[in-house]
Amino acid sequence: MMDPTLIGAVSIFTAGLTIAIGSIGPALGEARTASQALAAIAQQPDEANTITRTLFVSLAMIESTAIYCFVVAMILIFANPFWDAAIQAGTAAGG
Amino acid sequence: MMDPTLIGAVSIFTAGLTIAIGSIGPALGEARTASQALAAIAQQPDEANTITRTLFVSLAMIESTAIYCFVVAMILIFANPFWDAAIQAGTAAGG
Amino acid sequence: MMDPTLIGAVSIFTAGLTIAIGSIGPALGEARTASQALAAIAQQPDEANTITRTLFVSLAMIESTAIYCFVVAMILIFANPFWDAAIQAGTAAGG
Amino acid sequence: MMDPTLIGAVSIFTAGLTIAIGSIGPALGEARTASQALAAIAQQPDEANTITRTLFVSLAMIESTAIYCFVVAMILIFANPFWDAAIQAGTAAGG
Amino acid sequence: MMDPTLIGAVSIFTAGLTIAIGSIGPALGEARTASQALAAIAQQPDEANTITRTLFVSLAMIESTAIYCFVVAMILIFANPFWDAAIQAGTAAGG
Amino acid sequence: MMDPTLIGAVSIFTAGLTIAIGSIGPALGEARTASQALAAIAQQPDEANTITRTLFVSLAMIESTAIYCFVVAMILIFANPFWDAAIQAGTAAGG
Amino acid sequence: MMDPTLIGAVSIFTAGLTIAIGSIGPALGEARTASQALAAIAQQPDEANTITRTLFVSLAMIESTAIYCFVVAMILIFANPFWDAAIQAGTAAGG
Amino acid sequence: MMDPTLIGAVSIFTAGLTIAIGSIGPALGEARTASQALAAIAQQPDEANTITRTLFVSLAMIESTAIYCFVVAMILIFANPFWDAAIQAGTAAGG
Amino acid sequence: MMDPTLIGAVSIFTAGLTIAIGSIGPALGEARTASQALAAIAQQPDEANTITRTLFVSLAMIESTAIYCFVVAMILIFANPFWDAAIQAGTAAGG
Amino acid sequence: MMDPTLIGAVSIFTAGLTIAIGSIGPALGEARTASQALAAIAQQPDEANTITRTLFVSLAMIESTAIYCFVVAMILIFANPFWDAAIQAGTAAGG
Amino acid sequence: MMDPTLIGAVSIFTAGLTIAIGSIGPALGEARTASQALAAIAQQPDEANTITRTLFVSLAMIESTAIYCFVVAMILIFANPFWDAAIQAGTAAGG
Amino acid sequence: MMDPTLIGAVSIFTAGLTIAIGSIGPALGEARTASQALAAIAQQPDEANTITRTLFVSLAMIESTAIYCFVVAMILIFANPFWDAAIQAGTAAGG
Amino acid sequence: MMDPTLIGAVSIFTAGLTIAIGSIGPALGEARTASQALAAIAQQPDEANTITRTLFVSLAMIESTAIYCFVVAMILIFANPFWDAAIQAGTAAGG
Amino acid sequence: MMDPTLIGAVSIFTAGLTIAIGSIGPALGEARTASQALAAIAQQPDEANTITRTLFVSLAMIESTAIYCFVVAMILIFANPFWDAAIQAGTAAGG
Repeated sequence: MMDPTLIGAVSIFTAGLTIAIGSIGPALGEARTASQALAAIAQQPDEANTITRTLFVSLAMIESTAIYCFVVAMILIFANPFWDAAIQAGTAAGG
Repeated sequence: MMDPTLIGAVSIFTAGLTIAIGSIGPALGEARTASQALAAIAQQPDEANTITRTLFVSLAMIESTAIYCFVVAMILIFANPFWDAAIQAGTAAGG
Repeated sequence: MMDPTLIGAVSIFTAGLTIAIGSIGPALGEARTASQALAAIAQQPDEANTITRTLFVSLAMIESTAIYCFVVAMILIFANPFWDAAIQAGTAAGG
Repeated sequence: MMDPTLIGAVSIFTAGLTIAIGSIGPALGEARTASQALAAIAQQPDEANTITRTLFVSLAMIESTAIYCFVVAMILIFANPFWDAAIQAGTAAGG
Repeated sequence: MMDPTLIGAVSIFTAGLTIAIGSIGPALGEARTASQALAAIAQQPDEANTITRTLFVSLAMIESTAIYCFVVAMILIFANPFWDAAIQAGTAAGG
Repeated sequence: MMDPTLIGAVSIFTAGLTIAIGSIGPALGEARTASQALAAIAQQPDEANTITRTLFVSLAMIESTAIYCFVVAMILIFANPFWDAAIQAGTAAGG
Repeated sequence: MMDPTLIGAVSIFTAGLTIAIGSIGPALGEARTASQALAAIAQQPDEANTITRTLFVSLAMIESTAIYCFVVAMILIFANPFWDAAIQAGTAAGG
Repeated sequence: MMDPTLIGAVSIFTAGLTIAIGSIGPALGEARTASQALAAIAQQPDEANTITRTLFVSLAMIESTAIYCFVVAMILIFANPFWDAAIQAGTAAGG
Repeated sequence: MMDPTLIGAVSIFTAGLTIAIGSIGPALGEARTASQALAAIAQQPDEANTITRTLFVSLAMIESTAIYCFVVAMILIFANPFWDAAIQAGTAAGG
Repeated sequence: MMDPTLIGAVSIFTAGLTIAIGSIGPALGEARTASQALAAIAQQPDEANTITRTLFVSLAMIESTAIYCFVVAMILIFANPFWDAAIQAGTAAGG
Repeated sequence: MMDPTLIGAVSIFTAGLTIAIGSIGPALGEARTASQALAAIAQQPDEANTITRTLFVSLAMIESTAIYCFVVAMILIFANPFWDAAIQAGTAAGG
Repeated sequence: MMDPTLIGAVSIFTAGLTIAIGSIGPALGEARTASQALAAIAQQPDEANTITRTLFVSLAMIESTAIYCFVVAMILIFANPFWDAAIQAGTAAGG
Repeated sequence: MMDPTLIGAVSIFTAGLTIAIGSIGPALGEARTASQALAAIAQQPDEANTITRTLFVSLAMIESTAIYCFVVAMILIFANPFWDAAIQAGTAAGG
Repeated sequence: MMDPTLIGAVSIFTAGLTIAIGSIGPALGEARTASQALAAIAQQPDEANTITRTLFVSLAMIESTAIYCFVVAMILIFANPFWDAAIQAGTAAGG
């Protein structure tokens, strides 16, 4: 028999931790890229178009790692297969 | 039978930790981008428009990771499916 | 039956930790932005208006992450749904 | 029944920790801003007024995060709703 | 007899931790590469094509380590052989 | 019934920790500001008055965060409401 | 008699941790190499071929350490000799 | 009844820790200020008087945070109200 | 009598940890060497041969420390003398 | 009744820790000041007297924080009021 | 009577940890030396021979510390006197 | 009755830790001072006498903090008042 | 009676840890010295002899600290007086 | 009665830890001093004698802190007064 309390508590804690830790890298990374883009624009205003386009592609790529974390956190909260199994087991056992 | 106390305690702790840790990266990142934008404006006043526009897009992108954390924290406090299930189970068991 | 002591203790600890950790990032970030703004003013006194306006927008954006943390801390102390449920349960049980 | 000892001990520890950790960021941040302001004054003595005004606005903004922490610490020591509830419960139970 | 609760809790925690930690390196790394590319474009606009191509190859290579982590996290949540064995064992034992 | 030993021990530990940790930030911050002021005086001896005045205002502002910590430590040692309640409870119970 | 639960839990945790920690070094390393290559191309466009070739050899070498980690993680999940022995022992003992 | 051993042990540990941690910040801070003062004297020997005076005021301000820690440590060792209460309680109870 | 579970669990955890930690140093080290080689080629294209040869010797030397870790991890998984002894002991004791 | 063992063990540990941690800050701080003084002498040999005098005052100030730690460590070993009370209590109780 | 399980588990864990931690220093150190050698070759191509010879002597010296770690790890796995004694004791006691 | 084992174990551990941690600061500090002295000699060979004299005074001052740690470690090993009391108590009690 | 298992386990763990941690400092230190020697040779090829001689003396001195660690590790594995005493005691007590 | 196992285990662990941690500072410090000496020789070959002499005095001073740690480690292994007392006590008590 499973203990849904532990499964639930771990899911909650992990979901929060995942998005919290997972937001540090992308936030700092996007900041670095964006601040360099601003410096590049100030240095070469004529290349603003190329710089902006490269910036957006890079931001999207970096944001993707934050999205991965957000997706995992959402799955853990709203579509958690372990929790579903624990609840089912509890219901089956009259829990 | 679930133990709502543990579920609740973990939810509280995780909600606070998520927004606390999750605010470090964006705050530092936005600061880096904004300070570079200020430096760029001082260096190329004529490009202030392009710089400001790129700055706002970047700030929005970085802020998004803080928003993710805030959303998860709010879900954990006010729309927590694990807590709802624990309360329901407690009510059903006469708990 | 819930244990209000644990819920309360965790709420207190989390509220303090949230605002404590959550004040580090914004404080350092605002300092970075503000100090760069001062440097920019010293370098381009004629752009002081543009610089100050961009500074205030940026400070507001960075302060917002501190506000998130403060809001969560206040909710945990004064409008904590888990604590309310624990107190209610305790009252109902004659606790 | 609640255990006022744990509530009290956690309140004390959290209050101290909150203001202790919460003073690091603002102290370093204000120092950074102020030292940059001094450098800016040395570089552009003629802009001392604009620099000083911007400095004070920034210091106030940074100090605000320290104030948040101080407020939370004071609430935890002198107006702690969890402690009040614990004492009341103890009195009611003849504790 | 196996304890599915522990297996499940560890799977949840590990999945979140893997993608959270695993997103830090790639996010910072891609940011470094992209910001250097922006600087290079600003310095040598004529080589924008070569720089962009090299940038995309490098980003793909760095992103691959994030993909490894995401794959492992997904396997742990949705195709976990240890969990399947634990559930089977539980079913066989009348669990 | 409360356990005054735990309340007392936590108060002692927190008071020391608060002032110990709380002295790091202001000490380093004041040092940074003061050393920059010295550099500024060496660079612009004619502005020594403005620099010194700004320095003292900034030092006072930074010192304030150390004062917050000292006040909390003193309250915890000499005017601790939790300790008073614990002693009273002990006396009332014949402790 | 072996305890398959512990073996399984440790395998899961280690697999995730291995690839998570193991992705930090290569991601940052590849980023450093690639960003230097971009700087080198911007500095010596005529040597782009030599630089790109050296870059790819280096990236392959660095990626190899990430591959080691991924291989170990996959072995731990899908071809774990300890788990096989634990399952066998469990089956032999009537589970 | 109170346990004087725990109160005493915590007082000893906290006193040592407070002055130990509390000496790091001021020592490094005074060193930074003093070394900058030396550099300033070497750069502007004619301003040695102003520099030395500002240095001494700053050192006194920084040393004050070390003094706070030393005072708290001394209070915890020689004028500890919690210890006095514990000893009194012990004597009253026939110890 | 030995406990094969503990031996197995520790072997798994150590194997993963060894290659994970052991990949950080070589990955960063190879990246540093390679990025310097790229800078050297850009600076002295005529010495590309000497530089490349020295680079490959150095990369091989640095990679050797990663190989040590990989070898130890593989030994711990597939040729672990402690595990063999534990299994033998278990078989001899009737498992 | 007090437990002299715990009091003694904590006193020993704290005394060592206090002077160990407390020697890091002053050692590094004095080194920084002294090395800057050497650089200043090399830069302005004519100001060697002023520099040396300021150096010695600063070293004395920094050393004072190490002295605080040493004094506390000595008090804890040779004039520890808690230990004296514990020994006395033990003797009184027939120990 | 000895417990071979603990001896074995500690041996495994220590062997892995030793080579894992022990590979960080040499890997980074060799990288630093090699990258400086590459820079030196690029700066003084005529001294390539002296530089390369000094590089190889230094690499050998640095590698020696990695060898120490590898030797200790191998001794702990394949020629562990503590394990031999534990096995012997187990055999003598009828295991 | 005292437990000499704990007192002894803590004394051993503290003695080692004190001198180990206490050697880091002075070693790095002396290195910094000495390396700056070497740079100063190379820059101003004519001031070698003044520089060397100042260096030796500074080294002696920094070494003093290491001496404090060594003295405490030796006291804890060879003239430990707590250990003497514990041994005496043990002898008195018939040990 | 002594417990040889604990003595053995601690000896193994300490031996590995000693050489692992003890190899970090020397490896990085030798790398720093050697890389500076390479830079010096590139800057002053005519002083290669003096530089190389000083380099070797320094490397030997730095390596000595690694040797200390290796000697202690070897003593702990192969000539451990505590282990010998534990084995003897075990034999005397009939094991 | 004393427990020689604990005394022995702590002695072993402390001896290793002391020399391991204690070798980091001196190794890095000597490296810094030596590398600066090499740079000084390259900059001022005519002062090689003064530089080398100052270098050796400094190295001896820094090495002294490593010697302190080595001496303490050797005392703990081969001339440990606590261990001698524990063995004696054990013999007296019939072990």
